Amino acid sequence: MTFFEKLLEITRKKDSLLCIGLDTDIEKIPEKLLKEDDPVFSFNKLIIDETCDLVCAYKINTAFYEVNGEKGWISLKKTSDYISKDVIKIADVKRGDIGNTAKKYASAFLSKLEFDAVTVNPYLGYDSIIPFIEYRDKGVFILCLTSNAGAQDFQKLKVDGKYLYQVVAEKVLNLNKYRNCGLVVGATFPEELRNIREMAPDIPFLIPGIGAQGGDLEKTVKFGTDSNGEMAIINSSRGIIYKSSGEDFARAARNAAEELRREINLLRR
Amino acid sequence: MTFFEKLLEITRKKDSLLCIGLDTDIEKIPEKLLKEDDPVFSFNKLIIDETCDLVCAYKINTAFYEVNGEKGWISLKKTSDYISKDVIKIADVKRGDIGNTAKKYASAFLSKLEFDAVTVNPYLGYDSIIPFIEYRDKGVFILCLTSNAGAQDFQKLKVDGKYLYQVVAEKVLNLNKYRNCGLVVGATFPEELRNIREMAPDIPFLIPGIGAQGGDLEKTVKFGTDSNGEMAIINSSRGIIYKSSGEDFARAARNAAEELRREINLLRR
Repeated sequence: MTFFEKLLEITRKKDSLLCIGLDTDIEKIPEKLLKEDDPVFSFNKLIIDETCDLVCAYKINTAFYEVNGEKGWISLKKTSDYISKDVIKIADVKRGDIGNTAKKYASAFLSKLEFDAVTVNPYLGYDSIIPFIEYRDKGVFILCLTSNAGAQDFQKLKVDGKYLYQVVAEKVLNLNKYRNCGLVVGATFPEELRNIREMAPDIPFLIPGIGAQGGDLEKTVKFGTDSNGEMAIINSSRGIIYKSSGEDFARAARNAAEELRREINLLRR
Repeated sequence: MTFFEKLLEITRKKDSLLCIGLDTDIEKIPEKLLKEDDPVFSFNKLIIDETCDLVCAYKINTAFYEVNGEKGWISLKKTSDYISKDVIKIADVKRGDIGNTAKKYASAFLSKLEFDAVTVNPYLGYDSIIPFIEYRDKGVFILCLTSNAGAQDFQKLKVDGKYLYQVVAEKVLNLNKYRNCGLVVGATFPEELRNIREMAPDIPFLIPGIGAQGGDLEKTVKFGTDSNGEMAIINSSRGIIYKSSGEDFARAARNAAEELRREINLLRR
């Protein structure tokens, strides 16, 4: 089974395109949890327990774990181990390095930590991406057009009549021989999202930028999914996991996730 | 003291532009060390003990540590702690993420692990770079033109008559208000190295790609340094730390480092 097939199977079974970003910041979690042995994992566990039936994926951004040193790495591993096999586990690492180094990163996240997918930065070109793609049953989401203001600086520059992000999308389509490559496209640029979807009609998009970053949900679903309303993973992090800062945070996260999944599904149909 | 001043002081005091990359691969270190409690740190410690008088910097690529999980993180921290204050400690992490996430990476490497400098991927633009620059006394080396074959894919595309790597260099010059920004420029493209040095005559270059990757040393020194033969950090990793695979590895690394430093210094004058 290719990664594309796996993703379709999961999104259909769960009837969800929703991904929750476990960008768990130790400075933002409820005080009560700080007494626990591993507060970040305890927080994640409660969020996962309350939301795992609602999502197709969890996305873990390593920055929030690396800032806690080796303890963070333990929280990361425990969280990855805890997530059940019926969702896609995405390591949002945005790594990009020369070949022999990229192999080590690919091994770290796709083999050792057993993530199902990873995000990769394309700036170093094909030989920095291929070591990830060689894990044929794993997903590789390459940054195309990111959701932040700085995306203007380089990604939106014109190269021979095309935008750089379009050149990146074309390169990724060429590298996609195992049907395991996707693109990261921010929800904050809906016209560009539409344009990239036209260029790449049948590969999965990982779409951050709704919620705290201000992306429009209707356009995200309309332009970001394929012609069947599938092949998109729509991420929300802060808008779900910090919905409440009180002891009811996990239940509040469930309610926010349930509402967002419902809105997305209404827009898909 | 700005980072630029600190770098100049150290390179002058040590009379060296040499940086050793501690890309320590547990699969490549002498078997005898595998019995130690922390083989990677033990290897690094012996290399550092033998070479610290010869170098201006050590560069640690996180991929080789993350592949070992939380143990790798412990080796990374112990290595950072062990390196003396009279050299520049560079975290070669090539991170790039949106602002609130980049802040966490900056804290992880520049504050928690106390590195003196970090490498950053520019693809996400200014707001992904600024959180690192805000550590005013730390160095931020932004990837400009990397040493690998894939550098052709995007970095060498023409944007309005300029190469993308030139646009990146210009942006970095504009961000350099605290005199703490440098560029990563590979030794494998000497003509481009010359061109980038002309554009950016007085900021430091971190130059990988000599040795195993095949960069020409004479052109690297001639084109990569500033008009005083300074402001360049020339890295060698595999060519030094794996010079011998036997028990004499640390002494062999010292000999290789001594020879390379001597060659570089002859070419500077």
